[in-house]
Amino acid sequence: MLIDCGEGTQMQLARYKVRAHRISHIFISHLHGDHYLGLMGLLSSLHLQGRTSELHLYGQQDLMDILDLQLRLSNTTLRFNLIFHAVRHYLGGVVFEDDHMQVKSIVMNHRIPCTGFLFREKPRPRKLLINKIRQHAIPIEYFSRIKEGEDYRDEDGRVIPNQELSVAPPAPKSYAFCSDTLYDRTIATEVRGVDLLYHEATFTSDLQERAETTYHSTARQAALLAREAGVRKLLIGHFSARYKELAPLLREAREVFPETELAIEGRRFSI
Amino acid sequence: MLIDCGEGTQMQLARYKVRAHRISHIFISHLHGDHYLGLMGLLSSLHLQGRTSELHLYGQQDLMDILDLQLRLSNTTLRFNLIFHAVRHYLGGVVFEDDHMQVKSIVMNHRIPCTGFLFREKPRPRKLLINKIRQHAIPIEYFSRIKEGEDYRDEDGRVIPNQELSVAPPAPKSYAFCSDTLYDRTIATEVRGVDLLYHEATFTSDLQERAETTYHSTARQAALLAREAGVRKLLIGHFSARYKELAPLLREAREVFPETELAIEGRRFSI
Repeated sequence: MLIDCGEGTQMQLARYKVRAHRISHIFISHLHGDHYLGLMGLLSSLHLQGRTSELHLYGQQDLMDILDLQLRLSNTTLRFNLIFHAVRHYLGGVVFEDDHMQVKSIVMNHRIPCTGFLFREKPRPRKLLINKIRQHAIPIEYFSRIKEGEDYRDEDGRVIPNQELSVAPPAPKSYAFCSDTLYDRTIATEVRGVDLLYHEATFTSDLQERAETTYHSTARQAALLAREAGVRKLLIGHFSARYKELAPLLREAREVFPETELAIEGRRFSI
Repeated sequence: MLIDCGEGTQMQLARYKVRAHRISHIFISHLHGDHYLGLMGLLSSLHLQGRTSELHLYGQQDLMDILDLQLRLSNTTLRFNLIFHAVRHYLGGVVFEDDHMQVKSIVMNHRIPCTGFLFREKPRPRKLLINKIRQHAIPIEYFSRIKEGEDYRDEDGRVIPNQELSVAPPAPKSYAFCSDTLYDRTIATEVRGVDLLYHEATFTSDLQERAETTYHSTARQAALLAREAGVRKLLIGHFSARYKELAPLLREAREVFPETELAIEGRRFSI
């Protein structure tokens, strides 16, 4: 899953050895160039490299209008199926769902329509303790109920408690991507308790007024939001080009929310 | 003057220390992504960096339609004046002219409408030999006629031949950029005798059939065109990604036209 696709994304994917062909879903937050201008090039390259597997794209309808125009004028018929899912920017809600995961859009507060995205794994079933299952000679037809947490009652009416037969699965993980936005406390409600929150931090606090005029946030505001939402970890990014050194941004955020890291190009974070 | 602007051009300009603000004219040959997808990003960056001086853009009307849509959807009003000059792809002709230079479009033969560009310096005036001018005490009002090659006749009716008073200027230089195209001999007429010809060479001759299907040229065909047009030097480029080594392309072209070089990213060529 790729979230946003600025100019040069395909080159950076290659540099960091991320295989573009493995991407099956692309989410675009809004139509400022630094968030989508690399998309047409990435799609063209996948096409030229012979991709045939389908690709799902999530973004505002306007995005597809731009792509349609560019595809038409370059006389390109993509070799793969590009399935576009229009996201309504003024309305949060589920945009993707399968057995393992759900993705919701979150309404951002930016100069143009803009959506964030919230990724939540679904709870997995409990894991059977195979030795115990064998020991009690439990028939296969009970497995799925034990995975869901039920106790087992054998033929003699003896109850074996579930925790003797299964262990809890890893907790479902969650990630929220809050693209360009003003500091907006309503977002905290949406991303409450996520394991990892990416929030933009374009400026330091001394430029808070500028942040407000340009519909961006300061590092301190990103941290305030992270604290308020009770997330586990905060990633800040989208720094103004004026900052040659990023330490002041990180320091400012950590004063409010210690578990903060810089979203530096090429770094990997595990959730 | 920037000719074509693929994805990542602004990053490459920075890498090779070319100051983007010095660009005053941009020429776009056609609407395949590798020739124009970096344009919107370059314009956005110039805008964000506070450019105010006007910028002239030459390309097909469709190009401006794409930019207009992207500017409108990102709610951007450029701080500088972007002056668009629509190029008719089916018709060669002068697209730019000032006191020093003329630029003509050349009709290419590609899968979609595509134009090349021919840059010709205008002849400069002869250079006055100041010492001789002083020696003969020639009044200033004769300077421009001497620069144009006239002899000087003094008050006594004595004729001083022009070559004693001035020297010939450097020959006007010329460069032709032949973007994506089939091998098409009518192009040779257009670019006859230029100092430097860039011609695409996507494939080696063993793939000539593929070159024809995709409306591209082989290295040999680029060289044939250079020879036929009697140019001084040939630059080949636009190599298919299949060629990890470019030596075979260069070898093939040099067999036909020895004065050939590879257009490698970052190399500079003097005309």
